[in-house]
Amino acid sequence: MITGKNYIGNNLIANGIKTYTTFNPQLNKENTSVFVEATTDEIDQAVSLAKTAYKEFSKISGVRKAVFLDVIADEILALDDELIQTYCSETGLPEGRAKGERGRTVGQLRSFAKLVEEGSWVEATIDTAQPDRQPMARPDVRKMMLPLGPVVVFGASNFPLAYSTAGGDTAAALASGCPVIVKSHPMHAGTGELVASAIIKAAEKTGMPNGVFSNINSSGIEVGVYLVKHPDVKAVGFTGSIRGGRALYDLAAQRDEPIPVFAEMGSVNPVIILPNALQDRGEALAKTYASSITLGTGQFCTNPGLIVGIKGAELSNFVSNLSKDILEINPTCMLHPNIVGAFEQSKSTVLSQEKINVTAEFTDTVQSNYAKQVVATVDGSTFLENTKLHQEVFGPFSIIVQCENSDELEEVISKLEGQLTGTVIGANDEVSEYSNVVSALQNRVGRIIFNGVPTGVEVCPSMVHGGPYPASTDSRFTAVGVNSIKRWVRPFSYQDWPNHLLPDELKNENSLEILRHINGKLTMSKI
Amino acid sequence: MITGKNYIGNNLIANGIKTYTTFNPQLNKENTSVFVEATTDEIDQAVSLAKTAYKEFSKISGVRKAVFLDVIADEILALDDELIQTYCSETGLPEGRAKGERGRTVGQLRSFAKLVEEGSWVEATIDTAQPDRQPMARPDVRKMMLPLGPVVVFGASNFPLAYSTAGGDTAAALASGCPVIVKSHPMHAGTGELVASAIIKAAEKTGMPNGVFSNINSSGIEVGVYLVKHPDVKAVGFTGSIRGGRALYDLAAQRDEPIPVFAEMGSVNPVIILPNALQDRGEALAKTYASSITLGTGQFCTNPGLIVGIKGAELSNFVSNLSKDILEINPTCMLHPNIVGAFEQSKSTVLSQEKINVTAEFTDTVQSNYAKQVVATVDGSTFLENTKLHQEVFGPFSIIVQCENSDELEEVISKLEGQLTGTVIGANDEVSEYSNVVSALQNRVGRIIFNGVPTGVEVCPSMVHGGPYPASTDSRFTAVGVNSIKRWVRPFSYQDWPNHLLPDELKNENSLEILRHINGKLTMSKI
Repeated sequence: MITGKNYIGNNLIANGIKTYTTFNPQLNKENTSVFVEATTDEIDQAVSLAKTAYKEFSKISGVRKAVFLDVIADEILALDDELIQTYCSETGLPEGRAKGERGRTVGQLRSFAKLVEEGSWVEATIDTAQPDRQPMARPDVRKMMLPLGPVVVFGASNFPLAYSTAGGDTAAALASGCPVIVKSHPMHAGTGELVASAIIKAAEKTGMPNGVFSNINSSGIEVGVYLVKHPDVKAVGFTGSIRGGRALYDLAAQRDEPIPVFAEMGSVNPVIILPNALQDRGEALAKTYASSITLGTGQFCTNPGLIVGIKGAELSNFVSNLSKDILEINPTCMLHPNIVGAFEQSKSTVLSQEKINVTAEFTDTVQSNYAKQVVATVDGSTFLENTKLHQEVFGPFSIIVQCENSDELEEVISKLEGQLTGTVIGANDEVSEYSNVVSALQNRVGRIIFNGVPTGVEVCPSMVHGGPYPASTDSRFTAVGVNSIKRWVRPFSYQDWPNHLLPDELKNENSLEILRHINGKLTMSKI
Repeated sequence: MITGKNYIGNNLIANGIKTYTTFNPQLNKENTSVFVEATTDEIDQAVSLAKTAYKEFSKISGVRKAVFLDVIADEILALDDELIQTYCSETGLPEGRAKGERGRTVGQLRSFAKLVEEGSWVEATIDTAQPDRQPMARPDVRKMMLPLGPVVVFGASNFPLAYSTAGGDTAAALASGCPVIVKSHPMHAGTGELVASAIIKAAEKTGMPNGVFSNINSSGIEVGVYLVKHPDVKAVGFTGSIRGGRALYDLAAQRDEPIPVFAEMGSVNPVIILPNALQDRGEALAKTYASSITLGTGQFCTNPGLIVGIKGAELSNFVSNLSKDILEINPTCMLHPNIVGAFEQSKSTVLSQEKINVTAEFTDTVQSNYAKQVVATVDGSTFLENTKLHQEVFGPFSIIVQCENSDELEEVISKLEGQLTGTVIGANDEVSEYSNVVSALQNRVGRIIFNGVPTGVEVCPSMVHGGPYPASTDSRFTAVGVNSIKRWVRPFSYQDWPNHLLPDELKNENSLEILRHINGKLTMSKI
């Protein structure tokens, strides 16, 4: 049941006076639940509980953390239809998407459970003593990863489950041993509270310390600012806009004690379409891309917002086909009137630039909050001169850049800001001719795709979801996959520490049977 | 031969008009070589060469990078006596220290050579395609670490070899495939130029692209500021003061495209001395610490500047013994008159605070630039109230905090800023009684030492040299050991990429025979 209150640790509290509701974009009306914004005192309590919980939670065994994560997944599934209905009512997204995203969320939690249950992720590294070494003895040094401390998570508007309350940031942080304070996304506060209730139930059932998780309501920016500036907060995870992510990054960098912010932000996900591929299968590609551009109403951070090719009959045909195909797709609902407003505004900013040709624009009347897809073209030289055309338009929109030749294509790619993904569509024999273009693309992105679409981020250890700024604030980490745990941990060394006082991961016995680097060799041996 | 010029890539260039010299603190006079500060144009050239070199160097095989690093080590050794004499004349440090540090530097280069020659460090992770998976096919995704781009390195005053021109930051960056631009430290510009000449010789002998390394002279802050703000610089390594490191961190965070700065900065390296240990072997401990505090004239970032104990006869005896022992040690030379000046100033700031007892102060006349060691004591409550007492005094100085009881001891530790190291001196049966104190210490440091001294940083894979701010700007990395390479790389995914176009590390064949995670299993198998 949705109460509208904050979870301050295990307790539902709402002493604040500022309230807000969520919005059903399909029905174009407000939902009924009323959410109470957290007070400063409540936030302080949540952080203080997290700080205390850290002392215990940071030392809990991997096996116990795995049980906690698995029970969170179970409790999310147990929310069943209430969760799915709330999700749909707060996003306008269809039930199938809700269920798919729930599956992804539960899958992420279970993959972190497996990771920490197995235990080798801590990168245990041991160099044993050499008391007789000349000119001086070598000490015994043992290293492993330790959790940073309380982590604040800001969820995404477009993924109320997989990148929000119990999404990848939270799952990774809890797996690492960091308590989590979620700044609930105001567009899906009900979904957020339900998921938070599942986490709290799981924490209680598995004996986790009070404060290991809190869920803070807020409809403005003040609460987030307060959280990021709080001296007892040690790291921040964010998924959302460049403006929002950069603001939090700046706040964190300006603290007396700067803390890491991993923000996954905007991206136009450039797609390079090479001539031979267009000749071979231009029509099929047009269909594939019409569908990728409109998938989820274009509200994916990996939406292909920029397609780059070389002028010629093949590209012209592709533009015609894509424009025709995309208009055959029925418009769908966006997440919120504010998202629709932003879509309309950024679309019209781009379309009002000089030398932009609109080749497809859905013009029929649609329901409120439904997005009308658009495709436009522009010359390479115009694109190079006007950085307004490089900005993300969040929604079903793509711009096709028509370059004079491969040099201009390379220049267009090199001038782009950092991106989550880059895609190359080419015939097998054609790609090596464009190696400079591919190198330029590689330098700008976190993931490169061959003959596919950027939408769809597989959750697997080899996935990188991140990339050079502004795709993320730190390209050295990923937001998806089990390695995303590295955002929330730091290496720590014990020197000549008594064996019985070491964590199990570093004790001689290796009772956890994890893989460790011992004197340069990777082994499961004891010492 | 020292020319005083800048290495702009492989060329010695000096079109500037601003010059400076280095200083021999033992002789208390300027050295003869004149160094020419780099012009803006020269810096631009160096960055531009680095950017171009990156295209080739980032793709060079591990085996070729290993040869490059090994030849750098050889060329440094070939500098022989000229390097040792220059080092001594620019630092006042003895020949034994120069040779020891050269050994460490060469050892670091060779350990990175081994790492990249073997090749598994790239964390290759492969999840193969499952075309028949339901509800949708799984793509083939393959991930590995790629170098970030040109790295700027600021060397340390106190380690002209091991943490400077070809020190840990440079060795790690070159090993990763990043070109390096060193902002030469003005106090040892001659040593820097000699080492730079060795790197350039090695680059030429092993066919590395021009621009893989540059060495930029500068005696002020403008050149460093310009470098950190340069859009084509992608990361920064720094070793030095909190003020300097924080200034560079702030500049980098304020860029349009923020870049990572790993700064290893100040530390007081708290040492907790427990009562039973003092009872058992207080006299020996006093001798050990007298020598650790004065080692290298106290000019180590791991110098024990803070000793914390519980009031009682044992601690009083320890204070007396330490004070006696430390006055028997002959003062030694500091690096530079400016360092002496800073030592005198920060020492007198601390000593002028209320309720400070000086228990040892070397008062005999000493040579110019020699440091007079000091030990002082203070009550726990005074220390807690006055954060001026928490600051690093760079030199042979230590303050002993006398706490009322273990609660106050815990409070003192919890109130400290982040530290490189923390040390616990205790009897074996005594440490578990103080588990809260040890936990508090662990949260503040990057490395914890049992019954030893913090000075002496073993170069090994299990070492963490870093820690919570302000010990470093990002506790998630280490400056020492082969894992320090992680500062300069980012994970990168290839999705459905043709096998023949993948880097060798990710090809099916595994011709490099590296360890890879394939579908969740760590293996050397091919696919």
